[in-house]
Amino acid sequence: MKRYRVAIAGGSGYAGGELLRLLLRHPGVQLVAISSRSQAGRSVYKIHPNLRGATELKFSRPEELEPVELLFTALPHGRVMRQIEFFMSRAERIVDLSADFRLKDPRDYPSYYGYEHRRPELLKEFVYGLPELHREEIKGAHLVAVPGCTAAAAITPLKPLTEQFGVKLVVVDAKVGSSAAGAAASPAGHHPERAGVVRSFKPTGHRHLAEMKQELDPHDRISLNFSPHAVEMVRGILSTSHVFLEDDYDERTIWQCYLEAYGQEPFVRLVKERTGLYRYPEPKLLLGTNFCDIGFERDARTGRLVVISALDNLTKGAAGQAVQCMNLMLGLDERLGLNEWGFHPV
Amino acid sequence: MKRYRVAIAGGSGYAGGELLRLLLRHPGVQLVAISSRSQAGRSVYKIHPNLRGATELKFSRPEELEPVELLFTALPHGRVMRQIEFFMSRAERIVDLSADFRLKDPRDYPSYYGYEHRRPELLKEFVYGLPELHREEIKGAHLVAVPGCTAAAAITPLKPLTEQFGVKLVVVDAKVGSSAAGAAASPAGHHPERAGVVRSFKPTGHRHLAEMKQELDPHDRISLNFSPHAVEMVRGILSTSHVFLEDDYDERTIWQCYLEAYGQEPFVRLVKERTGLYRYPEPKLLLGTNFCDIGFERDARTGRLVVISALDNLTKGAAGQAVQCMNLMLGLDERLGLNEWGFHPV
Amino acid sequence: MKRYRVAIAGGSGYAGGELLRLLLRHPGVQLVAISSRSQAGRSVYKIHPNLRGATELKFSRPEELEPVELLFTALPHGRVMRQIEFFMSRAERIVDLSADFRLKDPRDYPSYYGYEHRRPELLKEFVYGLPELHREEIKGAHLVAVPGCTAAAAITPLKPLTEQFGVKLVVVDAKVGSSAAGAAASPAGHHPERAGVVRSFKPTGHRHLAEMKQELDPHDRISLNFSPHAVEMVRGILSTSHVFLEDDYDERTIWQCYLEAYGQEPFVRLVKERTGLYRYPEPKLLLGTNFCDIGFERDARTGRLVVISALDNLTKGAAGQAVQCMNLMLGLDERLGLNEWGFHPV
Amino acid sequence: MKRYRVAIAGGSGYAGGELLRLLLRHPGVQLVAISSRSQAGRSVYKIHPNLRGATELKFSRPEELEPVELLFTALPHGRVMRQIEFFMSRAERIVDLSADFRLKDPRDYPSYYGYEHRRPELLKEFVYGLPELHREEIKGAHLVAVPGCTAAAAITPLKPLTEQFGVKLVVVDAKVGSSAAGAAASPAGHHPERAGVVRSFKPTGHRHLAEMKQELDPHDRISLNFSPHAVEMVRGILSTSHVFLEDDYDERTIWQCYLEAYGQEPFVRLVKERTGLYRYPEPKLLLGTNFCDIGFERDARTGRLVVISALDNLTKGAAGQAVQCMNLMLGLDERLGLNEWGFHPV
Repeated sequence: MKRYRVAIAGGSGYAGGELLRLLLRHPGVQLVAISSRSQAGRSVYKIHPNLRGATELKFSRPEELEPVELLFTALPHGRVMRQIEFFMSRAERIVDLSADFRLKDPRDYPSYYGYEHRRPELLKEFVYGLPELHREEIKGAHLVAVPGCTAAAAITPLKPLTEQFGVKLVVVDAKVGSSAAGAAASPAGHHPERAGVVRSFKPTGHRHLAEMKQELDPHDRISLNFSPHAVEMVRGILSTSHVFLEDDYDERTIWQCYLEAYGQEPFVRLVKERTGLYRYPEPKLLLGTNFCDIGFERDARTGRLVVISALDNLTKGAAGQAVQCMNLMLGLDERLGLNEWGFHPV
Repeated sequence: MKRYRVAIAGGSGYAGGELLRLLLRHPGVQLVAISSRSQAGRSVYKIHPNLRGATELKFSRPEELEPVELLFTALPHGRVMRQIEFFMSRAERIVDLSADFRLKDPRDYPSYYGYEHRRPELLKEFVYGLPELHREEIKGAHLVAVPGCTAAAAITPLKPLTEQFGVKLVVVDAKVGSSAAGAAASPAGHHPERAGVVRSFKPTGHRHLAEMKQELDPHDRISLNFSPHAVEMVRGILSTSHVFLEDDYDERTIWQCYLEAYGQEPFVRLVKERTGLYRYPEPKLLLGTNFCDIGFERDARTGRLVVISALDNLTKGAAGQAVQCMNLMLGLDERLGLNEWGFHPV
Repeated sequence: MKRYRVAIAGGSGYAGGELLRLLLRHPGVQLVAISSRSQAGRSVYKIHPNLRGATELKFSRPEELEPVELLFTALPHGRVMRQIEFFMSRAERIVDLSADFRLKDPRDYPSYYGYEHRRPELLKEFVYGLPELHREEIKGAHLVAVPGCTAAAAITPLKPLTEQFGVKLVVVDAKVGSSAAGAAASPAGHHPERAGVVRSFKPTGHRHLAEMKQELDPHDRISLNFSPHAVEMVRGILSTSHVFLEDDYDERTIWQCYLEAYGQEPFVRLVKERTGLYRYPEPKLLLGTNFCDIGFERDARTGRLVVISALDNLTKGAAGQAVQCMNLMLGLDERLGLNEWGFHPV
Repeated sequence: MKRYRVAIAGGSGYAGGELLRLLLRHPGVQLVAISSRSQAGRSVYKIHPNLRGATELKFSRPEELEPVELLFTALPHGRVMRQIEFFMSRAERIVDLSADFRLKDPRDYPSYYGYEHRRPELLKEFVYGLPELHREEIKGAHLVAVPGCTAAAAITPLKPLTEQFGVKLVVVDAKVGSSAAGAAASPAGHHPERAGVVRSFKPTGHRHLAEMKQELDPHDRISLNFSPHAVEMVRGILSTSHVFLEDDYDERTIWQCYLEAYGQEPFVRLVKERTGLYRYPEPKLLLGTNFCDIGFERDARTGRLVVISALDNLTKGAAGQAVQCMNLMLGLDERLGLNEWGFHPV
């Protein structure tokens, strides 16, 4: 099999490390470089200690990047848009894991991120990298922006509903692990403070809401609400979406809707059983996998749909999603290199 | 100070143990007995090992109970109603921690608990033991039923809103610790399965919803929704209530509403700050305390109020609440024996 | 590639589930059956929910087992010895994950396990399944007994020392995750009791000590001591062996000793660095992998060697070890199906 | 009761916060000031959020300190020795929680802490603040240095043995919570890295060993070894001391030794039972308490004593110990303000 030449720019963070883990054993690509300004020259296993013995790679300097067929950019928000010219000069295709090119409307950046976008004309060039929604566009794309982790966890289960039914109001109440806040030490992530919390850290106005609006409610017809909570977990997101439809449907109809939307999807599983501890999606079963599990229950009293979705924020919520996009962009089997099943117990 | 004679029936569970911890150092009462059918004859510290050295008490047989001025019943649901005659014959006052007398409408028992109530005529004799809502009734009461833990965590912050504003729709999304499921070992609580979960275990139809309806929405005008989640935590509940009002109010008005309702309450604190890791309620700070902390934020985009409340499910959610009720019933200072401040870090 | 026919007897426990995870993607074998008396007829994913979608297999009845080329027995201790005749009649080779055939001296069973061995004459037929020590024997073996998890974690790092140096005294202080106690719910494993503990549950006389004596000190010349502790973790063991040698050696000599012993081992890594959070072995990096990581430090004050080893109790400590043995027994590449690298962060 | 005027210098750390919690409800003292250079002017509850509503105190500037009868210094190591002149000019008595005056031999500072002591002549003026060992000296002292947390957890259980028996060799294997590393965010304490670890962070040469040598083995006759491990826990230490005596004694003799040493101690409990999950000391039961629990088991095979001790590193391991010393220094009941019993479950 031909191996495509790929590289990672900004590979010292958690998403970069997960990308590295996935790419090192991916049969269709050859990882030729992983750059990091702060770690240049060091062995990658010093930063990603799970890969001790897996590779001899060292971090390279960003400017040393040689031409590749596909480049992953895993830099902090705001940095990719500044260097996009350089990256585009080096890579035929770019998969950006930052927030810099996720939003189509340049006005969303000052509004949600607090800064003006530097290259607003490029926003429409990037495809929103959620294969379940945009597979065909991604296949032909040269520029893809991978969704935010809680955005992916909310949009994936909600899209079939907004598509097929009239949705009046949604409350997305997410529970997220500590790795979602990144690899840099901070008071909020200091273990004695972070351990065992149930912390409402951004009850309103979270940045990922912008993506949800864009993908689910472009015409602003839905009361779309989002509140994330930090819970005791390193990896993982459970998203509970409380959905109120304009009309009432029975569980069979909803199930049918999901089956049509996702019955053939390789990385979406419908999880809804009568019994068992894991009868609904559970993030801890998804560690390191590229699955987004979806379940739901209809509230007989109020008509509410409780839609439950789970994923690993670093895999389906970042690096796995990026690899899935890469597979599509390069014409490879979409599932290549993403064949993990999770652990139990864990 | 006169010390009232009190006893605990069914003291081998977690709520019973917490009650014991509180009563042993309570200056206004003398704990004369703690009964347990399964543990009769054993030293209490064998079951409640935190109390090693704190007391020489042994569990007594239930039938040995001598007359007391106040009896706490901390038996499994469905057991108190069967023995209520006996308990009333032994105690001038009863504070029941089970669900048996929380609901006023006997039809709620088959509907929410799956069984007919055996003594429906007594339901109206019991006062719902939430001092912030029913202080005056509790003062004169001989029979009090302490609220369910997630019910207390939801009703306390929501009542001022339903009282003062038109509330259209509420979604209560709760995150609860493992001790809420009780002291008996079970597959769902087995550590390898329970550790690190974010488990949606009862997305609709949870029993505590019946109490919320009763206290917040007796005329069934609100779309009241409740979904609890098990998270990695032993003690504690964080309840996130997503509230949609008929009219829109600014934060100041909501703040004023809470200040009026709870500004003088000894065990309710308003927690809402601009900065800091603990700017909203956090259950881990409330370990062993009788506080219910309440905070909120208004969603400028949709008008939603995000109301955040936290408490320790075994203290303010059970035993502490029971002691607070006892203090009121016996004419003692309401705060007696409940003067803990919590720990940090923890 | 020819696929050998293999089966699992007793596959509803944690080791059985991990075995299943490994075998389902193993390119050299075909899993033809997984039996469980209690779960017969149910889909395996109901018990091992991480494998939802991975297989259509159902648990079969034990007595239905058809002939296979290799059988894994993952039954509770004491059960395999009772059925060994049946298993041997059905399988050309057996890899036993229970303790029933680990010990060579029948007298160790009453002494450490509290019961007489039923088939003492078979004990010498079984090879102790630690490939790093018994590779050549395993290659030709038809009967292999996989080591206990804490035994493997202690014997692997200590064997090169007892082999090459005079060892006077060893204290093995192990820290183990909750999955090591098995899948059955019990008071000791109830989440509110087990969460966050550092529990010394068997300070002396632990069963796995018998294996350590057998493999490290058959002539009873070493003061060999072992104390395991339960800590907050689901999977994983960290074993700290405090070793006192008869003579004093510098770190270089010890390092050389390990390099000679394990420099070519596919699943033993020497982890000893000057800096970094992961400069010594850390079990959480080894989740789901077949590695046993080993590090050490010499105590300049007392001459003590602190030998630190880590592994995943369900993989290298059970199922992974079993698959490694299987590969050797069947003449396959020893590493087949065991190519995982672990996660970070996790 | 007369209330002594006390203050805290350096009160923004975890030990300072715990001290504050204990002093605010201590009936014998009045806390007149808590200083912090970095937090001067801020309300203490902003840094110690558990104390919201408990006090109106604000952090003062260090130089504003007014004369007090007793001052607690809770500054980082190396800072108190630089300011000791100032502190002595303001306070009649000093209880230092840092390491600056714990060691009697000035040469230990360069050896263990890496710096020369600035005021070596003062070292002998400070009493080592372990009441169980130095009660009478503390009573008359004006200068007391509180032990390091893991030192207290090891010295307390070992002293009766070194006192009464010939001890040849000890291995202290400690398991500690994350709060022991302090309140400052750091890569080692970043939640995704620190969560769920069993980390051998200082296998040899830990600073607290100097205290153990000083208190247990001043004549350097014992092979005294110490290795701490970071485990998943915020507060708490479990110390497992593997003790080899010159002669062999039965359990009764050891028990008698402990009974004589600690039978009357208010804050030492002997915990050794035949059955139960908590038959040995368990740190999680000691949260916020001033107990040091001690248990042991004799290894019939090797004669080893396994001595198990547990305490809360911030209470008996720091602030509680300091308050106990204060009570003695001021002639108060030693137990005053330290009457907590711990929680269960927790």
